[in-house]
Amino acid sequence: MSIKNSLITFCFFIFSIGFASAQNQVPIPTQAQLNWQNAEMVAVFHYDLHVFDGKVYNQSYNRITPIPDYNIFNPTKLDIDQWVKAAKDAGVKIAILTATHETGFALFQSDYSPYSMKALKWQDGKGDLLRDFKASCEKYGIQAGVYIGIRWNSFYGIHDFKVEGDSEFAKNRQQHYNTMVEGMVKEIFTNYGDWAMVWFDGGAHGPEQGGPDVLSIFETYQPKGLFYHNLQRADMRWGGSESGTVPYPSWGTFPYPAIGSGESARAEISKNNFALLKTGDPDGPYYMPAMSDAPLRGNGGHDWFWEPGRDNIIYPLDKLVNMYYNSVGHNSSLILGLTPNAEGLIPDADAKRLKELGDEIERRFENKINATSGVGELFKLKLTGRQKINQLVLMEDIAKGERVRKFLVEGKTKTGWKTIFEGSVIGHKFIHQFDEIEVSELHLKIQESKGEPQIKDFSVYFFNEK
Amino acid sequence: MSIKNSLITFCFFIFSIGFASAQNQVPIPTQAQLNWQNAEMVAVFHYDLHVFDGKVYNQSYNRITPIPDYNIFNPTKLDIDQWVKAAKDAGVKIAILTATHETGFALFQSDYSPYSMKALKWQDGKGDLLRDFKASCEKYGIQAGVYIGIRWNSFYGIHDFKVEGDSEFAKNRQQHYNTMVEGMVKEIFTNYGDWAMVWFDGGAHGPEQGGPDVLSIFETYQPKGLFYHNLQRADMRWGGSESGTVPYPSWGTFPYPAIGSGESARAEISKNNFALLKTGDPDGPYYMPAMSDAPLRGNGGHDWFWEPGRDNIIYPLDKLVNMYYNSVGHNSSLILGLTPNAEGLIPDADAKRLKELGDEIERRFENKINATSGVGELFKLKLTGRQKINQLVLMEDIAKGERVRKFLVEGKTKTGWKTIFEGSVIGHKFIHQFDEIEVSELHLKIQESKGEPQIKDFSVYFFNEK
Repeated sequence: MSIKNSLITFCFFIFSIGFASAQNQVPIPTQAQLNWQNAEMVAVFHYDLHVFDGKVYNQSYNRITPIPDYNIFNPTKLDIDQWVKAAKDAGVKIAILTATHETGFALFQSDYSPYSMKALKWQDGKGDLLRDFKASCEKYGIQAGVYIGIRWNSFYGIHDFKVEGDSEFAKNRQQHYNTMVEGMVKEIFTNYGDWAMVWFDGGAHGPEQGGPDVLSIFETYQPKGLFYHNLQRADMRWGGSESGTVPYPSWGTFPYPAIGSGESARAEISKNNFALLKTGDPDGPYYMPAMSDAPLRGNGGHDWFWEPGRDNIIYPLDKLVNMYYNSVGHNSSLILGLTPNAEGLIPDADAKRLKELGDEIERRFENKINATSGVGELFKLKLTGRQKINQLVLMEDIAKGERVRKFLVEGKTKTGWKTIFEGSVIGHKFIHQFDEIEVSELHLKIQESKGEPQIKDFSVYFFNEK
Repeated sequence: MSIKNSLITFCFFIFSIGFASAQNQVPIPTQAQLNWQNAEMVAVFHYDLHVFDGKVYNQSYNRITPIPDYNIFNPTKLDIDQWVKAAKDAGVKIAILTATHETGFALFQSDYSPYSMKALKWQDGKGDLLRDFKASCEKYGIQAGVYIGIRWNSFYGIHDFKVEGDSEFAKNRQQHYNTMVEGMVKEIFTNYGDWAMVWFDGGAHGPEQGGPDVLSIFETYQPKGLFYHNLQRADMRWGGSESGTVPYPSWGTFPYPAIGSGESARAEISKNNFALLKTGDPDGPYYMPAMSDAPLRGNGGHDWFWEPGRDNIIYPLDKLVNMYYNSVGHNSSLILGLTPNAEGLIPDADAKRLKELGDEIERRFENKINATSGVGELFKLKLTGRQKINQLVLMEDIAKGERVRKFLVEGKTKTGWKTIFEGSVIGHKFIHQFDEIEVSELHLKIQESKGEPQIKDFSVYFFNEK
């Protein structure tokens, strides 16, 4: 073989690999998205003026009714360490605080919005919950995120992103509001260090819709963070319900770069009660995993904010555990809404339930019978003799993308091989709980994939049902 | 004469006096109004965010355009003593400060409006211009008044007292705005001691017009003060121009209890370029003297606020002196608009002009040739031999009301009695300047009056024209 022929052959070989790769290419998460998926459990703390009004929160009313007296904000026993500790006890790795919610009141020291902690008598106008929250998160090794509500501002008069009216005054105030928001967002992004994620609730209208340009400020000052969301960008997607669950399968990939960009996309997303947000799209070119959010106080209510006398609607432990399986176990993240009260504390009942949840999850995964990992299509997991198992965990190395499309898990019982689960997506994590079965060996067979499967974990567990 | 007849006669006599009194009854000023008329010269300091923007103030634009960055408020050399001293040098006895103007920004520590000094970086959010102003006024023996603008609020979105729109949101925000204003007004009325006068510019919409109820708050907390104004009450009236003058005659009485209460009253008041506000009504049942206001910087401009590079439009001394004669000398008060600059000082040129004005007024009245006073219809003022005079002052004791309707002043020259002035109203003060004349005696003849004339001062002067 001449050198020339060898070179041609070599080039053809390279080209073939490139082609094959392109065919099998799957979206790759960013480092921030990997970090987010690895966190698995997230807490979002909602805190705003109406926590202190002694009344039951009525979102549609509160959106169009300014709080009469902002000095009701007076958490006399404020202890944000206690909030973060309570979340950590549940297993939370990322905690988020509402820097602003629908009143428009800013829980930090702003030089752009006077409707902020500077206005308060509390702490002589020097209070800054973002600062304190960041410090508490650091203390407990929790990553901090920030929720920014700009869609509503009952004080300034913003309804669904807009100043009402089309007078010159309304236009000028819209411009002023946008500038104020941009200033506040820059403050949040520059005065507190890095944020693991930024949550613009309800999305952020950008300049193309007459809104502030928050994305470019984010990209300038928080380049390593997660952005959720506007019509240009969403690093994760809402999971389509506030039930703390997504169905199976829930793919981490999505057909659009953002949620609701374009009319046809919006129609597509809304269909069948947000089915696309729940399931995702295995062929979607964008990595954008689902979030499963729910308020901890959602059992017969749906309280994102603390209200007096509502301890009774804290989800019972079994429902929360079920949520965990149907979120974290379904390639999603579980986002629990926690409600600091008017004293400035997570109520004891909530803190207790969070601890119970963390302990129960730990208990269910402490007895790992065996585990393997690797690259390929068949993974054999031999046990020491026959052993009882009732739970399995699968994880892909999603740094290389979600590759698996179809898989089968079988267990070797004393009467032969039995199917334990036939599935499609694995993604970051798939957890399956089942009636106990005695097996001596398990096989994970990847029946379809895009590119070679990269299995980070294939492990089995046994725990006693209580 | 029987006892019975005597009794009837006596009763008839009493009745006659009562009737005569009623016929001659004139409106009597309150103590606060007496105090106001005695003050004669008043300063109003306008200070607001746009003083710091380096641009020329455009009222109609500023009313509908929020200030982009309120932290431009940064008077690095603030010296309110210097403001008050400058006003005192002109002869001012009452000084007024704009607690809020059309931006809505409050120059004090408010717990009701976050758009106040608490929001500022300046003085670490602890600044309070009302507090400092009150202290400076006390230091210089000046009575302090306060101007409160509630008709416009470019930040909150108030245009001519109203939140735009008629949505539920707009209605709720209007209600909130009213509550906020009531709270701010109560703060102003309770946190700083007594105010000599309260000036609601453009009037104050009351509850009957969907506005806040500021009058009852005033009456509760500032019962001794002057109220200007709403549709129920005005303790003085705007003099119908911003020229610093009123014509002669300008009666201190008015046909309505307030300015513009009722459509026919509004029409009546607006007629002939506010003629009724200028002249008043000798038969009006309400004591409500005219104010003659003008910005010091009004000579080729009309600057209520400081703007850079506008020293050239400070009124020259002769125009200010003329203003004095046509306001204070016409039974009105002269209200000069003074403009602290972005450094926090009354500019040198303005302070110098104010001092010149004070000195010139003093000079013109220091050579009092003779004076008299008393009760009756003829007042004789004998001089020591024949002397040159060129100015006379008449004052009624208006604690008993404006009684004089028609009068004549004559001087005895070497060729006989000559008429110096034939007039109608005297009121608090009438000043007449005339070509010098040598007289040995003067007569003041009250030709018509309601009740017995009470002349507090009848004095003559001579000064050299410069």
